[in-house]
Amino acid sequence: MTTTNARPRSGRRPGASGTRAAIAAAARVQFGDVGFDRTTIRSVAAAAGVDPALVMHFYCSKQQLFVETMALPFDPAPVVADLLAGERETIGIRLAHFLLHAMEDPAVSTVLLGRIRAAASDPEAARLLRDLVPGELVGPLTRELGVDQPELRAGLVSSQLIGFAVARWIVGVEALAALDVERSIAFLGPSLQRFLAGPLP
Amino acid sequence: MTTTNARPRSGRRPGASGTRAAIAAAARVQFGDVGFDRTTIRSVAAAAGVDPALVMHFYCSKQQLFVETMALPFDPAPVVADLLAGERETIGIRLAHFLLHAMEDPAVSTVLLGRIRAAASDPEAARLLRDLVPGELVGPLTRELGVDQPELRAGLVSSQLIGFAVARWIVGVEALAALDVERSIAFLGPSLQRFLAGPLP
Repeated sequence: MTTTNARPRSGRRPGASGTRAAIAAAARVQFGDVGFDRTTIRSVAAAAGVDPALVMHFYCSKQQLFVETMALPFDPAPVVADLLAGERETIGIRLAHFLLHAMEDPAVSTVLLGRIRAAASDPEAARLLRDLVPGELVGPLTRELGVDQPELRAGLVSSQLIGFAVARWIVGVEALAALDVERSIAFLGPSLQRFLAGPLP
Repeated sequence: MTTTNARPRSGRRPGASGTRAAIAAAARVQFGDVGFDRTTIRSVAAAAGVDPALVMHFYCSKQQLFVETMALPFDPAPVVADLLAGERETIGIRLAHFLLHAMEDPAVSTVLLGRIRAAASDPEAARLLRDLVPGELVGPLTRELGVDQPELRAGLVSSQLIGFAVARWIVGVEALAALDVERSIAFLGPSLQRFLAGPLP
């Protein structure tokens, strides 16, 4: 991560920033469609219409390319703050509300479903996500909530969210695909609530 | 499925049955490790040390090879009957108990995790599983339970089970990987109970 922080996320010159964005977009599509293993610096460069050396210049490694292009396309900090500011009794339903509405944005669903596809098909992508995800949204949420076993709660919440995404969007289970957002929230909310703030056995 | 039913599942001659088992074992490993797309009749034949024509003779197509080798390695009918025979109030915890203990058997975990990996990496595998899974265990369970919206309930139950499997075994979230079976059952049971038999919003 230190190598990344040393360079700005978007280039100073419009040209560099546009090129970098094109590389990121191509990488996001490939990681999501064919997985981590079969996505290469070379294949991303070809799809973005640039030289592989330029991909290396911006991202240093395929691992770094994955971590940066699969980052959440929104800032999770204010989301966590909002969730913490509301009533504790409704935090599960409010988390479900935020995430299920966020999934309506293709920029969000591409990243979140791409992560799951990549992790399921490649141990290296799974390892990268295992390091990345706990610091993002659900991890900080349970840690700042003042509950016991925050890491375990975050894992349980993630398990229900990941599973709904797999069943609803990746496998395409009909009865779930037919649900509208509000009903989905109503089904997932209570499970998330128990995992987030309920008493754990 | 009709082409399959026309030939016996295990050969009459010990030689044929052993060869078929070797092909199935090789296919299971490849589907689970590299996914549906990159597994071929040819690659399975090579791993099993047989001619590709023999794989075609036994399984007719890669799709059929997937469906047969990714079938549950136990008969779900008596499991469903047992679950239905017990108290309705504990059916969620009893389902979690059965599945989490079943996952301790490598024959079961290979198939269930292999299915998720394959579905996540390939739309064709996802489609095959979407046709296969509802007739197996959770689908018959909710349909015979006498509850409203059985298909939706089966989808919700599956979503939590799939997500736990992804987070616990595929991504390897530490706090979940550290759980023993009894605690896992205690966490998942109430969610499964609500999806199976609770009032749905």
